[in-house]
Amino acid sequence: MRRASVRTAALLLCILSYLLVGAAVFDALESEAESGRRRLLAQKRVEFRRKFGFSTEDYRELERLARQAEPHRAGRQWRFAGSFYFAITVITTIGYGHAAPGTDSGKVFCMFYALLGIPLTLVTFQSLGERLNALVRRLLLAAKRCLGLRRPRVSTENMVAAGLLACAATLALGAAAFAHCEGWTFFHAYYYCFITLTTIGFGDFVALQSDEALQKKPPYVAFSFLYILLGLTVIGAFLNLVVLRFLAAGAGLIRRGAPESRGSTCVSSRRLQQLEMGARDNPGFSPPWSPEAVRGAREDRPRARRKSI
Amino acid sequence: MRRASVRTAALLLCILSYLLVGAAVFDALESEAESGRRRLLAQKRVEFRRKFGFSTEDYRELERLARQAEPHRAGRQWRFAGSFYFAITVITTIGYGHAAPGTDSGKVFCMFYALLGIPLTLVTFQSLGERLNALVRRLLLAAKRCLGLRRPRVSTENMVAAGLLACAATLALGAAAFAHCEGWTFFHAYYYCFITLTTIGFGDFVALQSDEALQKKPPYVAFSFLYILLGLTVIGAFLNLVVLRFLAAGAGLIRRGAPESRGSTCVSSRRLQQLEMGARDNPGFSPPWSPEAVRGAREDRPRARRKSI
Repeated sequence: MRRASVRTAALLLCILSYLLVGAAVFDALESEAESGRRRLLAQKRVEFRRKFGFSTEDYRELERLARQAEPHRAGRQWRFAGSFYFAITVITTIGYGHAAPGTDSGKVFCMFYALLGIPLTLVTFQSLGERLNALVRRLLLAAKRCLGLRRPRVSTENMVAAGLLACAATLALGAAAFAHCEGWTFFHAYYYCFITLTTIGFGDFVALQSDEALQKKPPYVAFSFLYILLGLTVIGAFLNLVVLRFLAAGAGLIRRGAPESRGSTCVSSRRLQQLEMGARDNPGFSPPWSPEAVRGAREDRPRARRKSI
Repeated sequence: MRRASVRTAALLLCILSYLLVGAAVFDALESEAESGRRRLLAQKRVEFRRKFGFSTEDYRELERLARQAEPHRAGRQWRFAGSFYFAITVITTIGYGHAAPGTDSGKVFCMFYALLGIPLTLVTFQSLGERLNALVRRLLLAAKRCLGLRRPRVSTENMVAAGLLACAATLALGAAAFAHCEGWTFFHAYYYCFITLTTIGFGDFVALQSDEALQKKPPYVAFSFLYILLGLTVIGAFLNLVVLRFLAAGAGLIRRGAPESRGSTCVSSRRLQQLEMGARDNPGFSPPWSPEAVRGAREDRPRARRKSI
């Protein structure tokens, strides 16, 4: 079995075990609470039916009515602001489901819209993340210079630490803002921000769904859209640093020694071998491992390193 | 302004225009239907209130009850099978929201679970996709050999065409299966498969939510889980071919001339220059652009090409 196949099999085993463990823990954490909620609901239902004397069929009809009314509680979802919100949740794959196309033509358009929109979003947020990383790198370098370091260098570890800090700050700031605007607890607002920016988007907490906010609070609407887009940029920048490197390496796309290799060129191994052999046979040539060449390479390094990662 | 910044600005402009266009079309397609549904609901609500004579407060309480009962309609969600289903929707970021953790400890665990699970899933599906692409490449090569081609080669275009076909087939097969098992129309089942495999996951259509399927139909449960995981592998393989290449190129991770560069090595431009100069000065050396070297490189190429993409 080849190395890549072994790696894939190991990953598959990992993910299946991870799912089994997750299922066991969620079962343990949620199952009892669910039973409690079910009992309470059944009891309330009996009380209501007794109070108003309606049949099982009536009650079912009422439930259906309430379910259908659910998306309308927050005011109109499909005016321009709401449609823009929905479009964001499609192309970012958040997909809260607080609104979903009700007409068949809406569903068809939604599929075509996602087909082009999702790759476009992936590429855009990757690109934005890359620019953000470049900016952070420059800021860290300037900070190190201000601290009086003579040959400041920004390592991958520095960048990952800065990325983690930025992600945590984005979540905490978002949580504070949404807790204030939606009247949620800080914990619930943090959970909302996390589930949104990871693009899971359960839809159990959705911003802009109370007090007809979509129609009546344009500044809050603008803030929410901006927060989602900026938050995804920060997460994109971090994924760029950490996960994309793995993905590209797995796909065999990554340059050997990528972090240090700006100013480097790929040549076929055969050509390199030819050049090395040819050069070694030349008495007037100082090979790359000679003291002269090593000194030259050292002079080269700071410039190359500054652009690294 | 540097080239990368111009590219990012152009992408940002693209995505904003795309969102505006999307919002306008969704508004046009859905807004009127929404108004119709709202009117119908208001009318039914009045009828019900008149029939049973309950107050606005009673009706609100009833609606709240119906909303809370919604996740319980499909039977218990948090037994092992349901928890496994939920764990899949977390780490794949589908996040239907048909079930969401109700307890705070469940929410905390869900966040930590996603934190590790999402990158693990990304890497695993990328790896699986890569293996699938390798298999498809071998099959295409074998097919071309059977057709009597003397020097069969599988181009990127061949692979993208095969990927598109595989994605379409996965969606169509899933749609047929879920239409049969859930009693949906083929169109709605296709929409469900599309929204699931793009990981948008609105939750307006969710498999395994009728007739207590999670508890009573283990083979259908196993099929649904397998379909989601296999479907994501097929989509992952396609993204691997098309989008990952863009992302890695944008992040500066991709090898120059990646498709042809197996068996190539990156060296610093300075070292290459030194080697070339040293070799050129050696009278006994045939440079890489000499007829001998070009012939040698040609002999090398078919093996490298076969592994390309």
